[in-house]
Amino acid sequence: MELHIKNILNDMEKDGYDGYLLANFSNIQYLSNYKPTSFAFAVIKENPVIYTSKMDLEIANRDSTIEIKEFESFSSMIDDLRKSIKKLAIEPSLEYGTYEKFRDDFDISAVDFVNKQRAIKSPKEIFKIEEATEIAQQAFRQIKIIEKHEYGAQENMVAFELDKYMRENGASEPSFETILTSGANSSLPHAVPTPDKITNPVLIDWGAKYNGYCSDNTRTLVYTEKQHEIFDIVAEAHNKTIHKIKPGMECWEVDKIARDIISEYGYGDNFIHSTGHSLGLDIHESPSFSSKDKTIVEKGMVMTVEPGIYLEGEFGVRLEDTVAIDNKARILGKLPLVIE
Amino acid sequence: MELHIKNILNDMEKDGYDGYLLANFSNIQYLSNYKPTSFAFAVIKENPVIYTSKMDLEIANRDSTIEIKEFESFSSMIDDLRKSIKKLAIEPSLEYGTYEKFRDDFDISAVDFVNKQRAIKSPKEIFKIEEATEIAQQAFRQIKIIEKHEYGAQENMVAFELDKYMRENGASEPSFETILTSGANSSLPHAVPTPDKITNPVLIDWGAKYNGYCSDNTRTLVYTEKQHEIFDIVAEAHNKTIHKIKPGMECWEVDKIARDIISEYGYGDNFIHSTGHSLGLDIHESPSFSSKDKTIVEKGMVMTVEPGIYLEGEFGVRLEDTVAIDNKARILGKLPLVIE
Repeated sequence: MELHIKNILNDMEKDGYDGYLLANFSNIQYLSNYKPTSFAFAVIKENPVIYTSKMDLEIANRDSTIEIKEFESFSSMIDDLRKSIKKLAIEPSLEYGTYEKFRDDFDISAVDFVNKQRAIKSPKEIFKIEEATEIAQQAFRQIKIIEKHEYGAQENMVAFELDKYMRENGASEPSFETILTSGANSSLPHAVPTPDKITNPVLIDWGAKYNGYCSDNTRTLVYTEKQHEIFDIVAEAHNKTIHKIKPGMECWEVDKIARDIISEYGYGDNFIHSTGHSLGLDIHESPSFSSKDKTIVEKGMVMTVEPGIYLEGEFGVRLEDTVAIDNKARILGKLPLVIE
Repeated sequence: MELHIKNILNDMEKDGYDGYLLANFSNIQYLSNYKPTSFAFAVIKENPVIYTSKMDLEIANRDSTIEIKEFESFSSMIDDLRKSIKKLAIEPSLEYGTYEKFRDDFDISAVDFVNKQRAIKSPKEIFKIEEATEIAQQAFRQIKIIEKHEYGAQENMVAFELDKYMRENGASEPSFETILTSGANSSLPHAVPTPDKITNPVLIDWGAKYNGYCSDNTRTLVYTEKQHEIFDIVAEAHNKTIHKIKPGMECWEVDKIARDIISEYGYGDNFIHSTGHSLGLDIHESPSFSSKDKTIVEKGMVMTVEPGIYLEGEFGVRLEDTVAIDNKARILGKLPLVIE
C-alpha cells in the first residue's frame, strides 16, 4: 500500500475514523494515480476503493493503484460502505449536497488528512515542479515581446503565443489561464488578456503543467520612471522575503516580511493579496503566505512568493517566483527579475 | 432589482428563508454580472450584498449590479448577516467547510434556487450561445485537417490550432480543454490530446466561450468500413433524438430515445455516458439528458445531444450538437455531421 494512504490510515485511527470519503480530483490523483474526468468518490479504509463513472472505467482501471468499482447509485455505495464504516471523515471541500447523501448513515466530520501531506513534496515532486518551471520560463524567453522586443501585438495573442511555446516545450497545458495584461489593466491582479494592443507596463503571470505538476511565475516589464520606482520596491520585497524564509516560521510571518517592506514605502494598502501559496498538482494549494495562516513552514514545501503593488487606474507590478523550502528557500528556475 | 433576484426572493419567501448564500462563481456572475476571480460570497436578501476579496474590489465595483463589501472575516460577515437573517438557504454545491462556518448561527438548508432559473435561457442568452457555436464551428473549418485534409500532425498541436482559430474568431477562450483524439484513444470519452501523430478515426470535441457563454460540439471523422458502420448508428441516434425532443417530456425520456436506438444495434453497453447536458455560463449545467434525471424539458433550455459508441481498445464515435428548445429542438450552428 502506498505510503500516503498508510499515513492517512494512521491519522484516521488516532481519531477513530473507519473511512475517509474524497471527491476532489487532485486528492484522488495524489492517492491513486488516477485523475477522474467526470466524477469519482474515493474511500480510504482498510481496503481502499474508488467508485467511478462508467465512462471513466477504462482510464481508471488503467491508471489506478486502488481498487476501482463502478458507481451505480449513492444508495448502493452507502449499503456497501456501511458494512465496515461507522465514523466517516469527509474532505472540507466536499459539496454540502454530497454530504447530505451520507449524513443519515454515518457519523460524519470534516477533516483534512490529505492536504497536509500534499503540502510536503517529495524530492521527485519538487523535481517535476522544477521541470515545469523550466519549460514555462523557456517559453517566456521565446515570445517575440521578450526575444525580439517586438511590441504592438494584442495581449490575448501574446498570451496565446506563450501557451503555444509551453506546449511545444512539453507542457500538457498551461497550469492556469495565462495573465498577460498591460497599462491600467495591470492593476487588476487576475486580469484577463484583452484583444487590445499591448501598452506599458506589461505584467505576465504564467505557468506550465508538466507530468501533472504546476509552475507559477510573474514578471513585469516596466518603462517609465514611476514604474521603475514601484518595480524596485516589489523586487526588494520579493528578494528579502525569499532570503528570510526558514523552516519553523509560521506562514503569516513570511507574509509580514513582504508586507512590512511594501508598507514602509507607503504602499501597504496597494498590496491587495497574500504573499504566496503552495502549489503542486493544483495551482493553488494550502498553506498560503497570508496574514491569517498559522501553518508552520516545513522542509519540502513548495510555495510562491509574489508581492505586488497595484495603483488603481494607473498600473500594477507583481514579481513572482516559486521556491522549494529546505534549510532555506531555493528559487526554482533561472529567469531573472529584470528582463533585458 | 434584477428579475432573476426577484424570482429568487419570491421562491425564498415561499419557504420562509431570509437569506440565500452563494459562493459558485457562475451563480454570482449570473445574478450580479461580476465574475469573481479569487473568492466571493453573495447573499441574496432584501438588500443583496456580495462580500469579496480585497484583490477583486476594483473589478467587482466596476461590474456588479449588487452592492459590494470587502470580505474581512467570517465572523464579521456573520455578525452583519445575523441582523436580518435567521433561516439561511445555501447552494447544494457549497463546500462543507464553508457551511461549518455558518451552521451555528443560522437555521440552514441546501436549496437550488439559481440553477433552475439558469436552465431556462433568455433569447439573449440563446443568441450568445449561438454566436459561440458559430465561432467554434468556423474555427473547426479552418484547421488544416479539415480545410486541406492534411494529416500527419500531432493531436495536441491540432487541438492547439483549433484553439487559436477560436480566439482569432473572437472567443475569449475554449469553453473546455479541447478533446482531439484518434485511433484507440478515441474510446475514452474525455481523452486528453497526446503528442502522438493523428491516426483514424479522429474525434474532436470542442467549444468556444464568447461573451461569457459556452458552445459544445463533437464530430468524428471516420475512415474504415467498421468506423462508418458505427458512425451511421450514432448519427441515427443523434438525429432521431433531436427530432423527437419536445417540451413536456422528462429528461430521462430523451436519454432513452438515443439509448434505445444504440441498444437495438447491440451497442447499448458501449454508450457509456449520458445523452446530453445543459450549458450556458458553464459548460456543464443542469439538467442532463441522463437515465435518472426527471426534470421536465422546457422551452428556453439549451442542451447538448451527444450519443456515442466506444469500443475499448478499438475506437470511439461521438456526434454532438447543441440544441435550443422551443416547440421543438433547433440545432445551433450549421456544421454537418458528415465532414467532407
